[in-house]
Amino acid sequence: MTTSDDPTAKKPVEFPATAPPADAENQKTTVGVSSILQRWKREDFLKRGSLALRGLALLFSLLSFIIMASNKHGDWKNFDKYEEYRYCLAIAILSTFYTGGQALRQVHEFSTGKHLFSQRTSAMLEFFGDQIVAYLLMSAASAAVPLTNRMREGSDNIFTDSSASAIGMAFLAFITLALSAMISGFKLSNQRYI
Amino acid sequence: MTTSDDPTAKKPVEFPATAPPADAENQKTTVGVSSILQRWKREDFLKRGSLALRGLALLFSLLSFIIMASNKHGDWKNFDKYEEYRYCLAIAILSTFYTGGQALRQVHEFSTGKHLFSQRTSAMLEFFGDQIVAYLLMSAASAAVPLTNRMREGSDNIFTDSSASAIGMAFLAFITLALSAMISGFKLSNQRYI
Repeated sequence: MTTSDDPTAKKPVEFPATAPPADAENQKTTVGVSSILQRWKREDFLKRGSLALRGLALLFSLLSFIIMASNKHGDWKNFDKYEEYRYCLAIAILSTFYTGGQALRQVHEFSTGKHLFSQRTSAMLEFFGDQIVAYLLMSAASAAVPLTNRMREGSDNIFTDSSASAIGMAFLAFITLALSAMISGFKLSNQRYI
Repeated sequence: MTTSDDPTAKKPVEFPATAPPADAENQKTTVGVSSILQRWKREDFLKRGSLALRGLALLFSLLSFIIMASNKHGDWKNFDKYEEYRYCLAIAILSTFYTGGQALRQVHEFSTGKHLFSQRTSAMLEFFGDQIVAYLLMSAASAAVPLTNRMREGSDNIFTDSSASAIGMAFLAFITLALSAMISGFKLSNQRYI
């Protein structure tokens, strides 16, 4: 209060030459704040997008797993007589556990704000995990397609239909995980600049 | 010259407290230069690595293409009787053209220093191209494996051996392209910060 009454304290205000730099500084701060806000928004969007994609991938892998595992109709119509279908089931189970684990971790981080791993480790795990599981799903779906095609040439029944839908679900899971891998790659590359 | 004789002008030099900031400034400049040099080295390494990987992918796809296309031994031992092998051949041809085109473009850029596309466009083309062709190669190799396995249970002859080696080459091409896709993803994400 005493300094405000002091006439010398008002000196900087009396120079009009100092006003423009102050404005520029203000503008700079505004630009900086808005770019940080934009970045936060983008990161939030990426987080939500990656969680949504993982959720979808979990749903599709689980469906593929259940449809393939329940595909037993006696005699030659058992999925476990064919190595392609057994491979498809194995990868669907792996993908279910992987996406389930990642989705749980992300929901846990959302709700508590705590991180299980360091940001860099979790970004690496996400990127390589997504990429590898996407390749495996693509491989499993591709391996099972020709056998199903050949069976359907002979007869179209509940066994071939279930196999086809399990393969379709594995393919959808592949697409969502491939997109998710792209987002995790973007996150991973951003880590280097924080 | 008149100001240097002015004793008041020498005031800042007389303060020893100003010396450390000058040193710090120097150090900062050195750190900045070395970090730029490091970045250049890293970018050069990435460029060479990506060209080498593309060259390997070209070699493997070409081998897969040639081995599969020459796999005709009469009767049931013709590759074009089986859709899996036709698919594998188609993807090997696609991958040969794609990796050949990319390698040519990179060699052209290396030798002339000119860029055919803007840096951003070429980074996008590389990343999505590598990723998509890698998925296709994985899919083609996986689709052709079960048929070959089943044939080999019956008899092991030159037809099944050639098919197996063509599939192996497609798989090696997949691995090199998957690594190359990682490098292009890194390049793409760096584009945003230049």
